[in-house]
Amino acid sequence: MSLTVVGSIALDTVETPWGQNTEGLGGAATYFSLAASNYTRVHLVGVVGEDFPVEHVALLSEKGINLAGLERAPGKTFRWTGRYHRDVNHRDTLDTQLNVFAEFHPKLPEEARDAKYLFLGNIHPALQLEVLDQARASFVALDTMNLWIHTTRADLDKVLARVDCLIINDSEVKDLTGEHNVITGAEAIRTLGPRTVVVKKGEHGCLLFHEEGLFAAPAFPLRDVIDPTGAGDTFAGGFMGCIAQRGDTSPRTLRQAVIHGSVVASYTCEAFGPNRLAQIARSDIDARFDAFKQLVAF
Amino acid sequence: MSLTVVGSIALDTVETPWGQNTEGLGGAATYFSLAASNYTRVHLVGVVGEDFPVEHVALLSEKGINLAGLERAPGKTFRWTGRYHRDVNHRDTLDTQLNVFAEFHPKLPEEARDAKYLFLGNIHPALQLEVLDQARASFVALDTMNLWIHTTRADLDKVLARVDCLIINDSEVKDLTGEHNVITGAEAIRTLGPRTVVVKKGEHGCLLFHEEGLFAAPAFPLRDVIDPTGAGDTFAGGFMGCIAQRGDTSPRTLRQAVIHGSVVASYTCEAFGPNRLAQIARSDIDARFDAFKQLVAF
Repeated sequence: MSLTVVGSIALDTVETPWGQNTEGLGGAATYFSLAASNYTRVHLVGVVGEDFPVEHVALLSEKGINLAGLERAPGKTFRWTGRYHRDVNHRDTLDTQLNVFAEFHPKLPEEARDAKYLFLGNIHPALQLEVLDQARASFVALDTMNLWIHTTRADLDKVLARVDCLIINDSEVKDLTGEHNVITGAEAIRTLGPRTVVVKKGEHGCLLFHEEGLFAAPAFPLRDVIDPTGAGDTFAGGFMGCIAQRGDTSPRTLRQAVIHGSVVASYTCEAFGPNRLAQIARSDIDARFDAFKQLVAF
Repeated sequence: MSLTVVGSIALDTVETPWGQNTEGLGGAATYFSLAASNYTRVHLVGVVGEDFPVEHVALLSEKGINLAGLERAPGKTFRWTGRYHRDVNHRDTLDTQLNVFAEFHPKLPEEARDAKYLFLGNIHPALQLEVLDQARASFVALDTMNLWIHTTRADLDKVLARVDCLIINDSEVKDLTGEHNVITGAEAIRTLGPRTVVVKKGEHGCLLFHEEGLFAAPAFPLRDVIDPTGAGDTFAGGFMGCIAQRGDTSPRTLRQAVIHGSVVASYTCEAFGPNRLAQIARSDIDARFDAFKQLVAF
């Protein structure tokens, strides 16, 4: 089954203790699409500026990602600059330039509207509502962030009421619900709309709350985390890609989708930007999925 | 097989957002013993003052814990006072009164020396060396803390060289090795002596590094964490208790021992002090062990 993603496409400049990546391919929708393309047909909806390098478009296209919804607008591409420290769980955003993203209104091509699965990347909730009004998906997952939780809560609540799944960081659970306990927080979120909640905890793994219970998974342990930028978006791409490929949202599929998300996200962390993610084949994913089984077996 | 523990026995005063527990039974060796007593014969070695309530002694005795090594010294029992906040992962130590613990030198009765399994609770490394000189155990596990890492490193290194297993917090891995990455940190620890390393991450579970690979386990998710005091010591008690009961340290036993440690620790968090821990039966442990299997199945 096919899968539509709407979100940011960016040129990222990232500093870490191990090096720097200047104006590399980035953006939530980019990582999501590259991850999900290992599983299913992906329709990417987003905007880039006139300066967006043609080789990035070529990469996405080579991966079989449908770019009919990739708009090229006058002006410059969205840019993000950040810095990681030796503890890679924390990063500072040094600069954000919205550029063409400031005026973006998602326009879904017919094929993208018809996709059975939809991921609303982390953009203004008003835009997410515009996407929902165009789409005919039967399972919709959502990302958001502290900014929208604190500044556009009314719109965000409208979105939450219309989606099936929220994929969210643990710190955002507290912001969204006021609950310090992740279980009671996830339960509070489920009363707002999404019946499935995935709480991402970075290197500590994630928790899945769904109709038939709770699932806990560690992160895949990595010796060398080079650049975790995009890991959360990659997780979402693997998660939704796996679901779209299976064509169901049974508890078993949801749990395995979490592991697939964790596996592809682990590859993203192993190089700057999507450099490693763009190289992996399905056989790499399957090998690490099997290693995950060994990791948690008792 | 029997199991000896040497460590602190305390009267703890704990404040949390949900209440206060004044001069309740506490101490690492107490939590350890209560947890391990569900699995095997435990020899408790420690010191209390003349003010130590007789009902606490009765509780430990009722659990079948051998108290031949429990010394009663002139003076007051070790006291610890701490405060937890709404985010229970962080606590402040408000007061520590060593009292009789300041002059403690562990004296192991013959039975305690003969135990095949030994746990060195978090006490001064020089005292841990005194215990090692008395004991004839074939598998020794160690706890320590930042204080000893920073102030008594030479003694601590001597202890590390003589033990089989280190059970340590993730933040202490960084202090001990300088490594920010938990995998490279655990590998560095293994070169110091202990071939098995358990890294505790509180509510994020734990990682086990051993000869045949890496095992990752989430914590058992709890809706109501009332008081996490002693959870780490309880974990160690369940872990070592399980190993002692099985009488082996195979990879399968080590992995299941981690889950047993996590299970008993989850009970400790559900009430002030060891109140819940002291009530559980082996059937409670087994039920939550089975729930753990469901929690991580995919």
